Amino acid sequence: MAATLDLRTFIRDVPDFPKPGILFKDITPLLRSADAFGAGVEQLAAPFASERISCVAAIESRGFIFGSCVARILGAGFVPIRKPGKLPWTKRRNEYILEYGTDALEIHDDAITESDRVLLIDDVLATGGTAAAATALIKEFGATLVGAGFLIELAFLEGRRKLGDVTTQSLIQY
Amino acid sequence: MAATLDLRTFIRDVPDFPKPGILFKDITPLLRSADAFGAGVEQLAAPFASERISCVAAIESRGFIFGSCVARILGAGFVPIRKPGKLPWTKRRNEYILEYGTDALEIHDDAITESDRVLLIDDVLATGGTAAAATALIKEFGATLVGAGFLIELAFLEGRRKLGDVTTQSLIQY
Repeated sequence: MAATLDLRTFIRDVPDFPKPGILFKDITPLLRSADAFGAGVEQLAAPFASERISCVAAIESRGFIFGSCVARILGAGFVPIRKPGKLPWTKRRNEYILEYGTDALEIHDDAITESDRVLLIDDVLATGGTAAAATALIKEFGATLVGAGFLIELAFLEGRRKLGDVTTQSLIQY
Repeated sequence: MAATLDLRTFIRDVPDFPKPGILFKDITPLLRSADAFGAGVEQLAAPFASERISCVAAIESRGFIFGSCVARILGAGFVPIRKPGKLPWTKRRNEYILEYGTDALEIHDDAITESDRVLLIDDVLATGGTAAAATALIKEFGATLVGAGFLIELAFLEGRRKLGDVTTQSLIQY
């Protein structure tokens, strides 16, 4: 049954959020459906089932919801990628440029090693700025970035280009 | 093997985080271990396996990591409980008092109904202020709050008292 579920019907359009002119893709109806949420995380994990993924890294906060479940499905560990000031231990940071100003992502120093095979998961691939910062940070550890998976891809923003040669999949495209 | 795993050995003490005098319980080593993380979410779900849980509600951001996996294990939907300004749709809010000032939690209006049987999940039960605000908000929807589960309980802070008669379990106590 889950295989025939159209995940797109569980995404709600919210106009003018977080600011005027933005059509926000609200994933909470999908999360609320055990069938749709289950199908989503299974489909995010499936292409990487034979890839011996050792850890799944996901970007806070919505990425945590999908990344943790994908880690469980793949039998992998979970690595949270967080905004500055949230992780308590020594960490690596990657600053990146936004439309206005800069932001940064952090990963604990001991969270990823050279021998890791990492899968990056997030809910939405938009302009790709955050995702590209995350992939660059993961690569700094010397690990193998096996791929990146997103529930939603706003394809018209061409964020996929910023990920270069990283194997990238998305379940719903707009 | 997972049954004999001592989850406590995967928690790292970080002194003076987020401010001087606080001994922070860092859960990231547990997340990084597929075995420990798997055992943790299985143990959080187990007491509620026969409780016909319809949705698992979890508090951002670390609560998302555990709550989403517990929802999958129980075959339930997932409801994110968020800080103000994060949820895009119409929502209910509960403000609560902190040591200095106030904070608030929000849940989407259509996320929980009267017929729901809800399990609340978070990573740490400390003073219980946030957890009590979450349980009160869930009850506002008229739903049945079946229980609350936490990876870690700082028992000396007596947060459990603030949850009143809610069935509360924690996997690691300090």
